[in-house]
Amino acid sequence: MDLDLMRELSVKTDSKILLLILDGLGGLPLDPSGPTELEAADSPNLDTLAARSDLGLSLPVAAGVSPGSGPGHLALFGYDPLHYVVGRGVLSALGVGFELTENDLAARLNFATLDEAGRISDRRAGRISNEKAAPLVDLLNESIDLDGVEVFVTHEKEHRAVAVLRGEGLSDALADSDPQRVGLEPLPVKPTDGSPEAERSAALANAFIEQANEVLADKHPANTVLMRGFGMHPGLPSFEEIYELDAAAIASYPMYKGLARLAGMELLKEGEGIAGEFETLKANWDRHDFFFLHVKPTDAAGEDGDFERKAAVIEEVDRLIPEVLDLDPAAFAITGDHATPAKLKSHSWNGVPFLLSSPYTLPTAQSFGERTCAGGSLGVFPAEEIMGLLMGHALKLNRYGA
Amino acid sequence: MDLDLMRELSVKTDSKILLLILDGLGGLPLDPSGPTELEAADSPNLDTLAARSDLGLSLPVAAGVSPGSGPGHLALFGYDPLHYVVGRGVLSALGVGFELTENDLAARLNFATLDEAGRISDRRAGRISNEKAAPLVDLLNESIDLDGVEVFVTHEKEHRAVAVLRGEGLSDALADSDPQRVGLEPLPVKPTDGSPEAERSAALANAFIEQANEVLADKHPANTVLMRGFGMHPGLPSFEEIYELDAAAIASYPMYKGLARLAGMELLKEGEGIAGEFETLKANWDRHDFFFLHVKPTDAAGEDGDFERKAAVIEEVDRLIPEVLDLDPAAFAITGDHATPAKLKSHSWNGVPFLLSSPYTLPTAQSFGERTCAGGSLGVFPAEEIMGLLMGHALKLNRYGA
Repeated sequence: MDLDLMRELSVKTDSKILLLILDGLGGLPLDPSGPTELEAADSPNLDTLAARSDLGLSLPVAAGVSPGSGPGHLALFGYDPLHYVVGRGVLSALGVGFELTENDLAARLNFATLDEAGRISDRRAGRISNEKAAPLVDLLNESIDLDGVEVFVTHEKEHRAVAVLRGEGLSDALADSDPQRVGLEPLPVKPTDGSPEAERSAALANAFIEQANEVLADKHPANTVLMRGFGMHPGLPSFEEIYELDAAAIASYPMYKGLARLAGMELLKEGEGIAGEFETLKANWDRHDFFFLHVKPTDAAGEDGDFERKAAVIEEVDRLIPEVLDLDPAAFAITGDHATPAKLKSHSWNGVPFLLSSPYTLPTAQSFGERTCAGGSLGVFPAEEIMGLLMGHALKLNRYGA
Repeated sequence: MDLDLMRELSVKTDSKILLLILDGLGGLPLDPSGPTELEAADSPNLDTLAARSDLGLSLPVAAGVSPGSGPGHLALFGYDPLHYVVGRGVLSALGVGFELTENDLAARLNFATLDEAGRISDRRAGRISNEKAAPLVDLLNESIDLDGVEVFVTHEKEHRAVAVLRGEGLSDALADSDPQRVGLEPLPVKPTDGSPEAERSAALANAFIEQANEVLADKHPANTVLMRGFGMHPGLPSFEEIYELDAAAIASYPMYKGLARLAGMELLKEGEGIAGEFETLKANWDRHDFFFLHVKPTDAAGEDGDFERKAAVIEEVDRLIPEVLDLDPAAFAITGDHATPAKLKSHSWNGVPFLLSSPYTLPTAQSFGERTCAGGSLGVFPAEEIMGLLMGHALKLNRYGA
């Protein structure tokens, strides 16, 4: 997506856009001649909507490439997922609800066990319990004192936590301290480019580990920490700045809330379950002009290899569609951030069904499914183009050129 | 294709990939309502395979652009054919089976006739016979002695030969010596950029021509040589380096063997005819994890404008498909490097039918043909993406991002 073009053409209007993401929506038939999860789902409202929508298959990153949730959502929001990188540390920080700022360097932290020779004997400190790990996180927060940066450690689960260093001039061009194997000494954090920022950040990370080793010395099995997945806040230009949109996000998992906040969206307090998220949408409809509504259980069912449950989640969403239509969005898209076919039990590279409803569509089919989408008016296209399509259909883009 | 992305994500696994190329496979109907060559062919095995495959139309270079064999195959192998250029001299060197190295500068050589005034009276030396030309090639190899480079001249056919200069610091930024018209003096070879490498290479090429003129002075009508189509070895990163693939090639023509070798593939000794190539595939199946199998006669029939013969070649391949399926490749693609419609009697820009069989496909049709491919789950897509698709379907790519 050419964000400069969007900046140039976007205009503020009263029309409202809804982007409904069913995480991992894309599916595959279990047998070649059988239906996909979406095709198998009894979804009369989605089918009726498809009959007055543009259809297509969207591709998140590149041919054959299965995206993580970070790149998948970046593409949906119009950001080039190969240009804007959300490091694993950043995603973990978002996942625990940490409010990242643009000066933040985040890393995943593992409590681990050092033997007397200084070698790692357990990379997960015996998967210590949450009850034992939480006080150690408090201890790190109280004790670690680094020159010129603030330090925030947040517990994630068991042996996992997130460390954030906040200050000017940091860099995530850093290699992990985790040697990935037991029996080896931890690696010093090394800069992966020659910049002074990376040199300084490596020194700070190593000081962090050294101080952690001191305060954890008698806390066997959690007597050290490994740092990995260093990532800076990606510094995305905001929806307000690119599209002149006052954007809001409704999501039930911290990571998706965090991804939305990276794009400058306001987080709306969601109700219970999928229906609760739709209630939140209705309650806030007058307050924003763009809504990102994220439904997680489709992906979870796909990851579990549960074809029927994934179809059932789609059916649950289908029953809520009339409530959305009552709101009368100017442009309403339904798609996923990637495919999670039950057959693969994981994210995949396959095309994701995409539907866009507005008064200005070229309908080509009577149902919403991977196969009708493959033959739709949008063809097979990069997910990065979705925001442009939504802006166009909502009549929020000026003509380009005379 | 983003080769850096492929390098980052590729993993070595036991799964095997087969890329079957029917040269010039893409066709056109003779009449608008009629079938293409592929659609007309009686190919029950390809149709059965299509019913459990992803289908699409692949485009080799750019809209409306008919590719030569070099760019066509580069795209199939994942290399941007507009970035990696295989000069005509290089293609000719590959075509005569010359083993090019990365330090080689190749050029096409024409024996030609100079009149007494030093002007070209025949650009092809009367199309002298192979019998007369071969000793002249030997003479050039024995006589020409250039400072700091090795010289190799290989006879091609009649008045055509290939010259290769091997040494450090050469460049193909050189204009032809062939003035393209009779009655003109040959042009000195001039550098087309200001680099010292091009200056030196031009001087070497001109010394080559000067020495050739001396030894050929009494060999009328072949009393000079014209040099054109200068090209360096393109220095492609290898399949091993990009994809961690141990790749092998089966092809019956030197040029395709040469193109495969540019990508670092091992050449397998092929049996007789198309069936012999498939025998070679079976015999070597356990020894590699990627196979490029090249079938030439589809293109030759298309070039001859022989619709029926092209369909018959496709039928011959169809009968061999069950043997391939017995090998159980993890990912199996069938396509062409470009279209060669009998109607056009030449390479063309039209879309090339593409089929990819794996357990993770979204089948959309019951037959393999241009029209079913146009409506397939892959849509119309750049041929450069084929390697990414194959790697994804063979589960040889890690997830991108968390």
